Amino acid sequence: MTDIRVTVWNEFRHENENEFIGGLYPEGIHGAIAAGLREHGFTNVRTATLDEPEHGLTDKVLAQTDVLVWWGHKAHEAVNDEVVQKVHNRVLEGMGLIVLHSGHFSKIFRKLMGTSCSLRWREADEKERVWVVKPSHPIAQGLPPFFENDECEMYGELFDIPTPDDLVFISWFEGGNVFRSGCTFHRGNGKIFYFRPGHETYPMYHKPIIRQVIANAARWAAPAGGPAYPYTKEGSPRHIAINERQSIEPIAPRDSKRARIG
Amino acid sequence: MTDIRVTVWNEFRHENENEFIGGLYPEGIHGAIAAGLREHGFTNVRTATLDEPEHGLTDKVLAQTDVLVWWGHKAHEAVNDEVVQKVHNRVLEGMGLIVLHSGHFSKIFRKLMGTSCSLRWREADEKERVWVVKPSHPIAQGLPPFFENDECEMYGELFDIPTPDDLVFISWFEGGNVFRSGCTFHRGNGKIFYFRPGHETYPMYHKPIIRQVIANAARWAAPAGGPAYPYTKEGSPRHIAINERQSIEPIAPRDSKRARIG
Amino acid sequence: MTDIRVTVWNEFRHENENEFIGGLYPEGIHGAIAAGLREHGFTNVRTATLDEPEHGLTDKVLAQTDVLVWWGHKAHEAVNDEVVQKVHNRVLEGMGLIVLHSGHFSKIFRKLMGTSCSLRWREADEKERVWVVKPSHPIAQGLPPFFENDECEMYGELFDIPTPDDLVFISWFEGGNVFRSGCTFHRGNGKIFYFRPGHETYPMYHKPIIRQVIANAARWAAPAGGPAYPYTKEGSPRHIAINERQSIEPIAPRDSKRARIG
Amino acid sequence: MTDIRVTVWNEFRHENENEFIGGLYPEGIHGAIAAGLREHGFTNVRTATLDEPEHGLTDKVLAQTDVLVWWGHKAHEAVNDEVVQKVHNRVLEGMGLIVLHSGHFSKIFRKLMGTSCSLRWREADEKERVWVVKPSHPIAQGLPPFFENDECEMYGELFDIPTPDDLVFISWFEGGNVFRSGCTFHRGNGKIFYFRPGHETYPMYHKPIIRQVIANAARWAAPAGGPAYPYTKEGSPRHIAINERQSIEPIAPRDSKRARIG
Repeated sequence: MTDIRVTVWNEFRHENENEFIGGLYPEGIHGAIAAGLREHGFTNVRTATLDEPEHGLTDKVLAQTDVLVWWGHKAHEAVNDEVVQKVHNRVLEGMGLIVLHSGHFSKIFRKLMGTSCSLRWREADEKERVWVVKPSHPIAQGLPPFFENDECEMYGELFDIPTPDDLVFISWFEGGNVFRSGCTFHRGNGKIFYFRPGHETYPMYHKPIIRQVIANAARWAAPAGGPAYPYTKEGSPRHIAINERQSIEPIAPRDSKRARIG
Repeated sequence: MTDIRVTVWNEFRHENENEFIGGLYPEGIHGAIAAGLREHGFTNVRTATLDEPEHGLTDKVLAQTDVLVWWGHKAHEAVNDEVVQKVHNRVLEGMGLIVLHSGHFSKIFRKLMGTSCSLRWREADEKERVWVVKPSHPIAQGLPPFFENDECEMYGELFDIPTPDDLVFISWFEGGNVFRSGCTFHRGNGKIFYFRPGHETYPMYHKPIIRQVIANAARWAAPAGGPAYPYTKEGSPRHIAINERQSIEPIAPRDSKRARIG
Repeated sequence: MTDIRVTVWNEFRHENENEFIGGLYPEGIHGAIAAGLREHGFTNVRTATLDEPEHGLTDKVLAQTDVLVWWGHKAHEAVNDEVVQKVHNRVLEGMGLIVLHSGHFSKIFRKLMGTSCSLRWREADEKERVWVVKPSHPIAQGLPPFFENDECEMYGELFDIPTPDDLVFISWFEGGNVFRSGCTFHRGNGKIFYFRPGHETYPMYHKPIIRQVIANAARWAAPAGGPAYPYTKEGSPRHIAINERQSIEPIAPRDSKRARIG
Repeated sequence: MTDIRVTVWNEFRHENENEFIGGLYPEGIHGAIAAGLREHGFTNVRTATLDEPEHGLTDKVLAQTDVLVWWGHKAHEAVNDEVVQKVHNRVLEGMGLIVLHSGHFSKIFRKLMGTSCSLRWREADEKERVWVVKPSHPIAQGLPPFFENDECEMYGELFDIPTPDDLVFISWFEGGNVFRSGCTFHRGNGKIFYFRPGHETYPMYHKPIIRQVIANAARWAAPAGGPAYPYTKEGSPRHIAINERQSIEPIAPRDSKRARIG
């Protein structure tokens, strides 16, 4: 059991607009992911969706979230920039972030990565085999050397991301591609995990092994409790000045010729 | 001799507004940096400054630039967002970027890092000792185990950046701080080097060893000539779709139950 | 409370041979470290020392150890190569390893790193200030932005190690040096943490903050429970062959001209 | 044209013992690799083989080698430990090392990695597709997004190596596996590149694209010319002591209670 506070965010449009997808996810993709976390002992899981006020991500909700799970696909542009900025601030402060599948192209992931996050893709119901390449990582807990998704949308390299801090999974695809499918990043005090499997047209988030990975990732991404993030003024990142009277060690006096300017 | 095309960009405000600083850099900070590169055999160096049209960074200039050197300090907010976006695109396409000193807080560096890039700082004319901690890196070419700056502005940890791909320098400061002073990053096809020493009130960019580091960095950051960056449409990052008819390997037919949706 | 099984290994020579050191560590350095872990809720801590049979690291002890803490200094060469090989195997299988201070020059650390692990050092009772540079790391839990050791032996760069997977701490020294003081590495399924502070002539392992770091590290280094390490034959690392009849996917028949050789 | 001094080392047993392999490599595998380097403008290439005195790697040869290319397969155990130690020392001093294919299991590579370097393998004449995942790396110069080997021996994950400094290539295999096929590492002042494609039963080292990668790697791995490696005594790695009289900065006198011991 863990009381890590997880908020599962979902765009929640496909499920309402397409009958087949609605049938796969009667409680929404967020509902399926939340159910998976509860199965794994998470007692403090809530959900939020795009069409709620402030996308369900109010200041209060964000302040009470240890780990945010993000699923979006076709409405990335509908996400309000102010909300994105607030989520970004919370990640830097230490909130964990798990970005799933098509969330690679969300505003928040691209803002955190600094790259285009583009990739190759193909919808052809092909097989994926996910290989564990960092077995010592907590996100690999309880996993076999590889696992498979019989049918999936393919994502292929080149995936335009910064070098991951840890590369946990690499996927093989029937159609001939490979992909870095499980990647960790650190930004500020926040830990980020990108996990590839997903897509709204497959019941991926009902699969036990996918749920296990997400649960492992949520435990890993929870705030570590290190030194507080150096936000000191109204949530905006800024310098921490140490003026001349506040050096830690004595500084020898100098007959400096430099200009004293403000 | 090298014909790597370098553009040195400078805010160029302090030099005009403060007599002392103008005296340190009669040709501007950009002029001093460009002179240093020419000393090291660069035959194709130009400069650009904030108050030129488009900040001197027109499409044509950017297209003809292999490595961009960036110096800014008090006018980061005056840099036009469209120019920042163009520079960002060019870095992802492969243009090298060398960010100097207070450029840590420039729009372009923060956009590429995805973090606040905040740090501690102190102006107290203190001593800095820069230690080489990755002697195998090309940027360390010709350097001794450490070098010193007798007087400098201090930058201290915590420096809020992603984990560098390579950590080349760590600085020791008289007042009791440390700093990751030489850091490399890769974003898209572009190589980025952050180098700490600088400040407008010290003649830092006239120092031979500082010029050597910047020359080494410019050689290292020049485009590697790998596979072209996957920009395919008017400079905007996007997916590269591979449709079902274009898989590389044959994909077994399936009696799929998934919805065929656009 | 945690039942992670920790074995604290100590050379245990200085304490017996030097009265001053014996006074600092009446229960041995291992005794002080073990006491610190117990304070932090570890219920399953044992110790082992060089002069016990098999250095106290029998097959049974190693098999029952989740995390091994290593302190050695002047008798590295007295450690039996077979024991080193067994510890190496166990690390690759997943046992965590925490190497303290002068343990940088132990056989096991050098074997795992593949480098000389040499460094600069100086005994001058100088001040050290340890800065946290990766606050999101579990080993930084509960720490302030920096902490100090009023008197210590200095270790300085260049520290000849591979690039750490995570750089958690950088030290500043009064005498003008810096050092990567907290470094993580992954080897096989095992997690390794090198932590600089120590030395037999200071009561370092009685300090609460040093004990906190070691406790944090022991929690972090415990086996993650991922896919089992690919040792398949009597503990010796080897290939896992997959013969032609065991491919996972069908391989198209070829009219190959290559030699069929054993 | 480049005068980087490359020595290509080959076990050179298969070619003499098997007619088919001898036919593929009439000048030996080393001869083919050396020819490829010469095609790419290397003017200073020599070869060395296992059965020469000291395996052709005398002190003089090693001292005059900037980059060593290593190919071995079935006779790793026949390589003399003293020669391995000399090569190790030279890598730490700055000599580049390119390890090809089955060289993953050579003594020198395992000694530098600190892990078992084990992997999955299968001989089934299957197709390999090598994807470039770090297009900004010099080793990717001139390459397309991916290239193929129509028939090859498969190497698959888990590849038991430390986290590479740069992951340049990932391979897809027809039989369902993936592999980190191009990995860089830094050890001491030396740069190391592991490149997967090879095997004695395929004419791999005659292929233009394979030769291009090896030439790129040899340019990249040449010594960077940074601060000299801290070997100070007869080639054996050791501490560099800085005694109490040699601190860089003044250290405040203390009324220390610690024991003054040798």
